[in-house]
Amino acid sequence: MADLKTILHIDYPIVQAPMLGVTTPAMVAAVSNAGALGSLPLGGLSSDKARELIRQTKALTDRPFAVNLFAHAPAKEVNRGDIAIMQEFLQELCLEFNFPFEAQNPDTFQFHYYQELIDVLLEENVPIVSSTFGVLNEGITAAFKQKGVVLIGTATSVAEAKVLEQAGADIITVQGIEAGGHRGSFLSEDTTPQVGLFSLLPQVADAVDLPLLAAGGIYDSRTVKSAFALGAAGIQVGSMFIAADESAASNAYKEAVLNAHDTSTVLTQAFSGRWARGIENEFMRRMDAKGITIPYYTIQNQLMSSIRAYAQKNNLPDFVAMWAGQSAGKSARASSRDITTKLIRMLPPN
Amino acid sequence: MADLKTILHIDYPIVQAPMLGVTTPAMVAAVSNAGALGSLPLGGLSSDKARELIRQTKALTDRPFAVNLFAHAPAKEVNRGDIAIMQEFLQELCLEFNFPFEAQNPDTFQFHYYQELIDVLLEENVPIVSSTFGVLNEGITAAFKQKGVVLIGTATSVAEAKVLEQAGADIITVQGIEAGGHRGSFLSEDTTPQVGLFSLLPQVADAVDLPLLAAGGIYDSRTVKSAFALGAAGIQVGSMFIAADESAASNAYKEAVLNAHDTSTVLTQAFSGRWARGIENEFMRRMDAKGITIPYYTIQNQLMSSIRAYAQKNNLPDFVAMWAGQSAGKSARASSRDITTKLIRMLPPN
Repeated sequence: MADLKTILHIDYPIVQAPMLGVTTPAMVAAVSNAGALGSLPLGGLSSDKARELIRQTKALTDRPFAVNLFAHAPAKEVNRGDIAIMQEFLQELCLEFNFPFEAQNPDTFQFHYYQELIDVLLEENVPIVSSTFGVLNEGITAAFKQKGVVLIGTATSVAEAKVLEQAGADIITVQGIEAGGHRGSFLSEDTTPQVGLFSLLPQVADAVDLPLLAAGGIYDSRTVKSAFALGAAGIQVGSMFIAADESAASNAYKEAVLNAHDTSTVLTQAFSGRWARGIENEFMRRMDAKGITIPYYTIQNQLMSSIRAYAQKNNLPDFVAMWAGQSAGKSARASSRDITTKLIRMLPPN
Repeated sequence: MADLKTILHIDYPIVQAPMLGVTTPAMVAAVSNAGALGSLPLGGLSSDKARELIRQTKALTDRPFAVNLFAHAPAKEVNRGDIAIMQEFLQELCLEFNFPFEAQNPDTFQFHYYQELIDVLLEENVPIVSSTFGVLNEGITAAFKQKGVVLIGTATSVAEAKVLEQAGADIITVQGIEAGGHRGSFLSEDTTPQVGLFSLLPQVADAVDLPLLAAGGIYDSRTVKSAFALGAAGIQVGSMFIAADESAASNAYKEAVLNAHDTSTVLTQAFSGRWARGIENEFMRRMDAKGITIPYYTIQNQLMSSIRAYAQKNNLPDFVAMWAGQSAGKSARASSRDITTKLIRMLPPN
């Protein structure tokens, strides 16, 4: 099996996880400049915005970095009844908490699927493309392969890892239940595999013949060492970068992460319609208590857009999605370079 | 910190997990005779039954073994309305599947709390007592300590580990979300911590000053090595013993475990009222779909008793609780001695 560092042209087998709303070009560049791999999240963005972010990152580093795509299919038939009930609930909440409410019209929902971004990535000679929520389609995979682009898929189960290998992935990120943010799961829409990294990683290692990145809960030399012992060729770290100097997270979000403990996070569909792990807050509890149907991703994500933007702008931890993993409380405020350097020192000797 | 093997008077830091309905005196003795620690489950049993099982085990081994207690408080006020609704649902199910239905009278529910067993354990000179679902009370802890009995508590979060240390535990079993069977959680009745072992174990190791047993997902040399790397002084293994020759599991249950994959198990309250991980089956799906309130443990456990017994007797995998962890499919049919010997060979060099 080819060596991960050789495939990715990096010095250290460490990947900074792509975190939409947290990761900035400055973070990606700092990580790549330190000899690891930064990942720029582009999921759901327009091609203009994607190009802009790629160029900003390139201006800050000559090293390779990855871009990350959301490789899912469009939302199923929109259920207008569910949407109406959800909007009514969100309006009540806004009234209660004195937020401005903006009704969303499902007819005008816009979402940029990953297919729109491929030309930009090819034109910009992006060397590494990671993806989550599914499998890149055949034509796109072929186009990337022809250009020598390295493809990283995301699996939350053995079955997903096998599908990704079959579809041409070069590397697989194995996402344990510990990981913060959205579950990469794609073989079932209603449930999400909830396998702990400790059990999942060796079982995936036995099932596929690709280098694996361990993701979820990694924060110190013990977890780094174990990731390799369990079968990983490298590690992907997200939560340790949330409070980084270069992070776009609000201060309320950073504070919540720094004060998190092992049981502070839960899985929720409340914010986007997709399962994701974040620090439990009032909005998640309200949604849970209400028990109404949460429209599928990306519908719920769009219904929530104005509330999320308002909460983010006004630094309100109870209505912003504070994605974080189960070891997130072990993070610290520091530069992305220092966080990366610290992780490098945790690597086991070759 | 004292060495785990020294404290427990064993040759190898391996504990066979206590599994009610699976573990037999023959299994416990075989594991202890191989130099590891067998655990005899006594939770909920009468003192006569407990004494009988302890004596059966003693007849088969001169080595130390542990007994396991359910250290929970009695069920809260019984809600008769919830019980009536549940019984109606169970009766419908029995009709549909052509099972005999036995209505249970909540006034006659009998459950043997652990306090009843203490005299037996002291009289029988049991050297090691492990417990789950809570903290042994102060008087009982003192009585055990006076006799030099080693106490092992079970934690599913950092907070629970701290409570157990404070209450006088000598060793803590750290139960990751991967583990099969009942969650040992005790600080909240409505939810259960769902922390992956990978994230939980090092965080507990930093928080308490006791030797830790890693539990959940351990099945091969990679997972054994990682358990120690993450901070454990020993390992507790359950699922690998379900299909053992000495196991009391039905053949249907064994087959389901041997054919399990990484995502075959889910957490459910359907069988007992307490959260537990088992292989998903028709009964769990029906209960989930019905969405009615599941009475607290031990009420639901008692309402289910006749159905469970019938399914067990008739080898029906869809109505028996097939507790198993996320790596359970990696087990094999073998003698408990051979399973233990294989685990011993996986231990990292001292």
